[in-house]
Amino acid sequence: MKNRAKKIFSRVPKNLDAIVIKNDTYPFIDNNFFYLTGLDKGIFEGSLLIVYPDGILDLIVSELEAESASKAEANIFVYKNKKDIINIIKKLSSSLKNIGVNYTTISYGSFQNLKSMFSKSKFTDVSQDLLKTRLIKDEIEINLIKKACRISDKVMDKIPDMLHEGMYEYEIAAEIDYLMQKLGADKPAFETISSFNINTAEPHYSHGDNSLKKGDFALFDFGSSIKKYNSDITRTFVFGNAEKKQKDMYDTVISAQETGFKFIKPGVKANDVHNTVSSYINKTKFKGKFIHSTGHALGLSVHDGASFSPDSAVLLQENMVFTVEPGIYIPKYGGVRIEDDIIVKKDGIELLTNSSKFLEI
Amino acid sequence: MKNRAKKIFSRVPKNLDAIVIKNDTYPFIDNNFFYLTGLDKGIFEGSLLIVYPDGILDLIVSELEAESASKAEANIFVYKNKKDIINIIKKLSSSLKNIGVNYTTISYGSFQNLKSMFSKSKFTDVSQDLLKTRLIKDEIEINLIKKACRISDKVMDKIPDMLHEGMYEYEIAAEIDYLMQKLGADKPAFETISSFNINTAEPHYSHGDNSLKKGDFALFDFGSSIKKYNSDITRTFVFGNAEKKQKDMYDTVISAQETGFKFIKPGVKANDVHNTVSSYINKTKFKGKFIHSTGHALGLSVHDGASFSPDSAVLLQENMVFTVEPGIYIPKYGGVRIEDDIIVKKDGIELLTNSSKFLEI
Repeated sequence: MKNRAKKIFSRVPKNLDAIVIKNDTYPFIDNNFFYLTGLDKGIFEGSLLIVYPDGILDLIVSELEAESASKAEANIFVYKNKKDIINIIKKLSSSLKNIGVNYTTISYGSFQNLKSMFSKSKFTDVSQDLLKTRLIKDEIEINLIKKACRISDKVMDKIPDMLHEGMYEYEIAAEIDYLMQKLGADKPAFETISSFNINTAEPHYSHGDNSLKKGDFALFDFGSSIKKYNSDITRTFVFGNAEKKQKDMYDTVISAQETGFKFIKPGVKANDVHNTVSSYINKTKFKGKFIHSTGHALGLSVHDGASFSPDSAVLLQENMVFTVEPGIYIPKYGGVRIEDDIIVKKDGIELLTNSSKFLEI
Repeated sequence: MKNRAKKIFSRVPKNLDAIVIKNDTYPFIDNNFFYLTGLDKGIFEGSLLIVYPDGILDLIVSELEAESASKAEANIFVYKNKKDIINIIKKLSSSLKNIGVNYTTISYGSFQNLKSMFSKSKFTDVSQDLLKTRLIKDEIEINLIKKACRISDKVMDKIPDMLHEGMYEYEIAAEIDYLMQKLGADKPAFETISSFNINTAEPHYSHGDNSLKKGDFALFDFGSSIKKYNSDITRTFVFGNAEKKQKDMYDTVISAQETGFKFIKPGVKANDVHNTVSSYINKTKFKGKFIHSTGHALGLSVHDGASFSPDSAVLLQENMVFTVEPGIYIPKYGGVRIEDDIIVKKDGIELLTNSSKFLEI
């Protein structure tokens, strides 16, 4: 993991003596903690990680996580109470004049606390340096994401055979999560979305007790998490025969996604990917019905630091991993979203998810 | 939900014109957002909630969540991009001189951003007021937690029959999560812990590919989440016959937990609960082997704002909900933890989890 620290330090101001990663109460945990330690089990609430330019790590953890922490290549300091933390920091901080902190994950309260503990240090925001480093995935990361994608693919391909009339949204969600875990996922990457009929028009709906009827849209959006790395995939079906409007929505989304796939390559700006895909939809009769970003970076976090959104100035580079997920949503009628995970390659993209795409079941 | 807002405002400085809750990127989402809106579906990344002393809510959300947000009793403002947010805030903020913010959940970066948007306002930390209000659960909350507890109880009681030699930790974890969801949980409350043998000595281990052998400790720690409210339960078994050391560990933990149950009542200090339980263990041959807090508040968050820990000065009050979970951990040997959820009542506690406790399977 020392390489990861060195990559980060190659971006930050040269005068930085260390970067401090501070976890709060779960779920306010900074994934850079796992990125830099390589730990893939444990929660590490309240833990502090001090990262030095040569990649050496000082890891300050509660007794509760001492056993889990021992698997990291780091100097481990165990505390029992707040007083211990202050004493440990006092020893470690004496030579640290300039410290980098992730301003996007540390709470305002914790930052005040950090300032009082590292009382002789000056602080600099390194959130953008962490983000930019993590956007470009290394081989270990790519392999884990690919594994997570393969599991989600397998589960998605089983869904059409699982559906029957009268089934509840939450039943399918339970089956999806179960299959992922049986196939080796540590957990679902996020709360699985299994929505039928008009609920498909609500992009962040999860699942409820609505039952499946003939002619319903059925939308499934889920991902697997393996050693904290995630996949994220969506397919939309019609249970039975689709009416013309459903077909038109579906065909438009598929074509919009293909437009995105063709556009993505190194050097392209992230907002231009979004503009290209949304322009495609806005030239059809579904103008204005694509109401979210075209995709997001994917990795240790499901929303991993960048997105294909109107405001994003990120320049695409090789080995960035993103979702591409256009959708059309018509309130009180239904929605279609198709989402795949891709990795940016020298000349374009490699698709990481490959489960079948068709409309009618 | 207006009552909840009013309860919070009864604690904060009287000059506050509003409280602003700001969500960052998932999972950096403030559960006070759900507490105050009553919404139980959706993610609401980047959403802003302005809460007024009379309980009126202004809810600023992206297009993506507009449909989900419409289920809240609130004035909804929908933004498409960052510029829209600034314009909406400009209109809403003109009369807000003094604003409360949750310093423990807002990131340092977001707080700087908030300051520039609400440029004429002064800010006050209301994190402790939010926390104290939420520690005392209302009827809606208690009913949801009880539902979540009943599901976890049912699943726990099925585990002994599910175990067989050679089974993998992750297989049981998959079965546990599946059963919870089939019984009506929206999702697991957290990554289910299913650990065998020496892995039980690592309190925050999740699950891996270790297989069950005769004589192994088998520890299961999981919870159900219903409409964002959580349960959290742990049982430890020995698969087959227990040796004396295992029995001694188990009996000590059970007695320590009972000591805690008897001690808890309104007016007692949270740290004294911990001191009582840990002293009990420290008087046995397992001195020093109880390495975490005795429990934590439970609700919308699994770690819901307070804990039975050496540093906690919280005074217990009726309708607070906590876990009580002593444990003994011997590295390279194994661990025992027993965890139940309780609600503080007038004269003591009501147990919310009731699944059977025994050692040998």
